[in-house]
Amino acid sequence: VHVHELPTPALVIDADALDRNLAAMSSRLPAARLRPHVKAHKCTALAAAQQAAGHDTFTCATPREVIGLAAAGVGTDLLLANETVDRDRLRAMADCDAPVTIAIDSDDTLRAAIDAGIRSCLIDVNVGLPRCGVEPDRAGGLADRARSAGLDVRGVMGYEGHLMMVADRTERAAAVEASMAKLRAAHADVGGDIVSAGGTGTFDLHASTGVTEVQAGSYALMDTHYGSLGLPFEQALFVIGTVISVAADWAVADVGLKSLGMDHGDPSVLDGAVWFCSDEHVTFAPDRPGVRVGDRVTVVPAHVDPTMAMHEVVWLMRDGELIDRWPIDLRHW
Amino acid sequence: VHVHELPTPALVIDADALDRNLAAMSSRLPAARLRPHVKAHKCTALAAAQQAAGHDTFTCATPREVIGLAAAGVGTDLLLANETVDRDRLRAMADCDAPVTIAIDSDDTLRAAIDAGIRSCLIDVNVGLPRCGVEPDRAGGLADRARSAGLDVRGVMGYEGHLMMVADRTERAAAVEASMAKLRAAHADVGGDIVSAGGTGTFDLHASTGVTEVQAGSYALMDTHYGSLGLPFEQALFVIGTVISVAADWAVADVGLKSLGMDHGDPSVLDGAVWFCSDEHVTFAPDRPGVRVGDRVTVVPAHVDPTMAMHEVVWLMRDGELIDRWPIDLRHW
Repeated sequence: VHVHELPTPALVIDADALDRNLAAMSSRLPAARLRPHVKAHKCTALAAAQQAAGHDTFTCATPREVIGLAAAGVGTDLLLANETVDRDRLRAMADCDAPVTIAIDSDDTLRAAIDAGIRSCLIDVNVGLPRCGVEPDRAGGLADRARSAGLDVRGVMGYEGHLMMVADRTERAAAVEASMAKLRAAHADVGGDIVSAGGTGTFDLHASTGVTEVQAGSYALMDTHYGSLGLPFEQALFVIGTVISVAADWAVADVGLKSLGMDHGDPSVLDGAVWFCSDEHVTFAPDRPGVRVGDRVTVVPAHVDPTMAMHEVVWLMRDGELIDRWPIDLRHW
Repeated sequence: VHVHELPTPALVIDADALDRNLAAMSSRLPAARLRPHVKAHKCTALAAAQQAAGHDTFTCATPREVIGLAAAGVGTDLLLANETVDRDRLRAMADCDAPVTIAIDSDDTLRAAIDAGIRSCLIDVNVGLPRCGVEPDRAGGLADRARSAGLDVRGVMGYEGHLMMVADRTERAAAVEASMAKLRAAHADVGGDIVSAGGTGTFDLHASTGVTEVQAGSYALMDTHYGSLGLPFEQALFVIGTVISVAADWAVADVGLKSLGMDHGDPSVLDGAVWFCSDEHVTFAPDRPGVRVGDRVTVVPAHVDPTMAMHEVVWLMRDGELIDRWPIDLRHW
């Protein structure tokens, strides 16, 4: 089946581009140096492709991602890089066949983990992003209490999410180093083998930060946001649409904001300039005249993670032909 | 079950507020004067509540919405207020038990409708929003060709979406009148009983525009965007979250941008000021000290339509107790 026979809007992965992205990353951060972040795709089949590229450890943002990977037998070391006090979900993670480690950053999240039978944790440290994470100078005390309560404290994590989009690479590297100095200080007090941090925007800036593993996810599929950084990864994810209306100065395709993560703004359209998105439409000015109703257009999302989360399925395409259909099976919570 | 026992993020409707919104609308636009727009909620059960409030005609943005309503037996007159050239979906709509009318704005969409066995259409007219719709002076010719091809041309539609958010009511009314003059001119050439237009932002500005039915949808649940207009509808939709981390100056709850339509910007949090959303987090400054991990927070979406489309289910709540669970069953395409 040709990609242009798909009903639209259709989420499509360029399989060759995905393969090149996986290879580019695994050559730089092989095996457990990368802990791929599943939140970027929420797709067990894509996680299996990352495992085939050498990575057996995974990062998750939701219990559903952890539980889904474990049920599918993908990954031998699953990290919930997030806090939760949901007892049922904590118990479900504790009952997984795969070893599960969860982030804690407070006595409340520690207690919830213990009560649910969780066995391993990382101490989540605030390294500058105002979100989760204990202050660095309190990480050691929390680790002590976690060990006293019987948890295996495997180390620390700290996400420098506020630095992913620093445009200048030298500035970004300096800011990452300063941020990771906080994580190293916390690690000195906490101990353990793991110092987990980073993302696609900083994946290659951790050679001397003390970080033992990088939590990148977007690198596999990319988006226009990360595409602006000059990283060695290429756009592999597209939303294919159909032109449904053509006016004198614009055309309209059926790729609306319900098929796209919009928090980073409008998507791009190949061969056109986007004017705006509605629920089920993108209005754009074509680069060339002659666009007709029924033509296919290729839309590039601004943010990969929520775009994947809006679709039930993603199609694998090679040379325009569909070679596989991957359910996006780790959606919701 | 109390709403605070739900796993989070949880999409919740205040049933009393919904009832008041439905009553406020049906008292102003009774029966077929309103053609409720299903795209705002994608929920058959909510459409059934609108039907119970007196409305038997429905507006849809996707074939899936049409086909789902027809399969559920909700509505006696279903309009796809959108263009499509998808043959399979057009045939599926033509095969629905309920009467289906579709919008056309070109000879291409006309031909696709005819080929698929569609029997009724409206001529979609551009009334100022740069999206779908034929130019007003070409509507009559398209209607003639549609009738020659055997279609029942029931009238015209034209969506003044660019005017929904004009803040001043007098200015908004004047702009709507000017926009609807285009639709009336087209209708004079097209004929038929139906002049369909409008939305929640302009629902009460059509008394003398010649419009026979209003396509409002957001009024039932509302969002912070429409909430700024001073309309007689109240916020009925919320996302309930759990605080998972508390810092000196901020707190973090598990309501992230994967649970919220973000195209209209950040959501609001009751009793706090939102700083930013991440995939699975909202960071906010609480209005009062004393927020603790495990506390529940109430998040108000900025845009109702895509927020509904991100969830599998919405819970009905009355006085804090859960009284029903509605699948959001008309998602995707």
